[in-house]
Amino acid sequence: SFSQDIDHILETQSALAVDLGGTNLRVAIVCMKGKILKKYTQPNPKTFEDRMQLILKMCFEAMWEAVRLNCRILGVGVSTGGRVNPQEGVVLHSTKLIQEWSTIDLRTPISDAMHLPVWVDNDGNCAALAEKKFGHGKGVENFVTIITGTGIGGGIIHHSELVHGSTFCAAELGHIMVSLEGPECSCGSRGCIEAYASGMALQREAKRLHDEDLLKVEGMDMKLSEPVTAAHLITAASLGNPKADAILNKACTALGVGIINILHIVNPSLVILSGVLASYYQNPVQHIVHGRALLSAQSIKVVTSDLEDPALLGAASMVLDYTTRRTY
Amino acid sequence: SFSQDIDHILETQSALAVDLGGTNLRVAIVCMKGKILKKYTQPNPKTFEDRMQLILKMCFEAMWEAVRLNCRILGVGVSTGGRVNPQEGVVLHSTKLIQEWSTIDLRTPISDAMHLPVWVDNDGNCAALAEKKFGHGKGVENFVTIITGTGIGGGIIHHSELVHGSTFCAAELGHIMVSLEGPECSCGSRGCIEAYASGMALQREAKRLHDEDLLKVEGMDMKLSEPVTAAHLITAASLGNPKADAILNKACTALGVGIINILHIVNPSLVILSGVLASYYQNPVQHIVHGRALLSAQSIKVVTSDLEDPALLGAASMVLDYTTRRTY
Ligand SMILES: [Ca+2]
Ligand SMILES: [Ca+2]
Ligand SMILES: [Zn+2]
Ligand SMILES: [Zn+2]
Repeated sequence: SFSQDIDHILETQSALAVDLGGTNLRVAIVCMKGKILKKYTQPNPKTFEDRMQLILKMCFEAMWEAVRLNCRILGVGVSTGGRVNPQEGVVLHSTKLIQEWSTIDLRTPISDAMHLPVWVDNDGNCAALAEKKFGHGKGVENFVTIITGTGIGGGIIHHSELVHGSTFCAAELGHIMVSLEGPECSCGSRGCIEAYASGMALQREAKRLHDEDLLKVEGMDMKLSEPVTAAHLITAASLGNPKADAILNKACTALGVGIINILHIVNPSLVILSGVLASYYQNPVQHIVHGRALLSAQSIKVVTSDLEDPALLGAASMVLDYTTRRTY
Repeated sequence: SFSQDIDHILETQSALAVDLGGTNLRVAIVCMKGKILKKYTQPNPKTFEDRMQLILKMCFEAMWEAVRLNCRILGVGVSTGGRVNPQEGVVLHSTKLIQEWSTIDLRTPISDAMHLPVWVDNDGNCAALAEKKFGHGKGVENFVTIITGTGIGGGIIHHSELVHGSTFCAAELGHIMVSLEGPECSCGSRGCIEAYASGMALQREAKRLHDEDLLKVEGMDMKLSEPVTAAHLITAASLGNPKADAILNKACTALGVGIINILHIVNPSLVILSGVLASYYQNPVQHIVHGRALLSAQSIKVVTSDLEDPALLGAASMVLDYTTRRTY
């Protein structure tokens, strides 16, 4: 039938999606309906050469797999930390979360190697595109997404379009500052919400407590060999560790106040949290918004993303949306 | 000649502009070219009834003067503190800077009394419209203006349009928070840039120093009867008062960090400061942006408005732009 034909096209027309994060480098095959058909994960190499080499290697591997799966790859979408000029496909500048990653033309080498069109944008912006196409942002004219991973990224949809800004520095939501001093941030400044509430910030605090032998509490299972993570901090707090609790409270307050700043600047109707810490942050953030935002902004909804992987899906959506609009 | 005819029309077609601030209520006659032909100033009354009465009284007085000046008044533009629904001409909610000023329909009573179309928007938004039509924002696609008076207001122009947001709470730039605690703000929260850097905040600190006999320094002229103001704080600092200097430094840092938050959220190409403290803040703010913003945002220009009165001119511009576009 006709609808089966359409279904078949939607399943076979696919994108290669690449996500370059502070920790991992991932490549996936994503079909038109937003299903991740195959995903490859490697630690993100520390040097430019190793990183570029691994990107191409993983893309080729995924291409072979796409052939095997009978998927037609329409292009490559790249999500990366740092500021990106999406018109040129160039990473302009990154914080030290991704080293050797400034003034990097990603489009040319990938396009030359793969013989495919390539789109590049910031990971937070990609997450916003994913929410718009596949998630809670579907049909919402003005929304913001905040993705909490190693760092904190974000994207802003205004009048149904991404806000890139005059120097492609809009929606750098991790570097909203909520303290005149405050902890040092990967960007070189202080008091950014990334320095309070990112996975990396919580891990830093967990390690600090652990080093002072103040992390582990009664009933907490933790092997000596285990690396200390944000999850340990959350467990410790839930088991009554007051120091862990205070650190997490401050992280929630910082994130909440940062989000209020977004509400008082662009006033979206919806805030979508994603990343591993999203569901942990949702309620406290909503509570802080109720307590500290201007009355007119208190009604704004804070939700947790239900997407498996917003950055990858958003990278794919650049390909899937552009190629089906037949513009490049 | 034809161009003289046009000049004549531009001079006679005018707007009544009303500005409702934390301190004063002002009404002006503004011609098409942005010249303020006549301006009336009164203290803004503390109660709703007195305020509405005075607005109408001052508008009638200005109308009489317009007849005398041979100006054709096309409508009334109102700039006010607080959140405004400009589609309805309603003040939704104000901070305690303007009391008894929530859920107020301004369009209907003014329009009924004056038999003229009425436009209403937030004072910061009006200031942005003024910069766009008459000031540094002419032809600039993405800019932000911050107006420092009794409180702090702001407006954002994105793709040459005001950003109002989903609940008319966008560009509430005075309530960007740069501290998790920090001084109490008129909005009920803490750590807002208005609570650090507004005229009211500096006056509060000046008074505090004065009460502790720590304000006046050698060479400073200050009468006993004089009310203590922000200007005294600036004078004291310039004459070497270290406490006054520290307070002003913190105000500059707070404003600078608040502006960086704007840069990291909407990334305009230009920041226009207006209000009495604008020229004082320009250099320190530019310095803080250079020191603490992400590299991609450090190049953003910070300038001081050269408009006589942005809120009034912006209120007028709503009338002058809309009526000449023949839409209401
Ligand atoms: Ca972003
Ligand atoms: Ca405003
Ligand atoms: Zn930062
Ligand atoms: Zn406030």
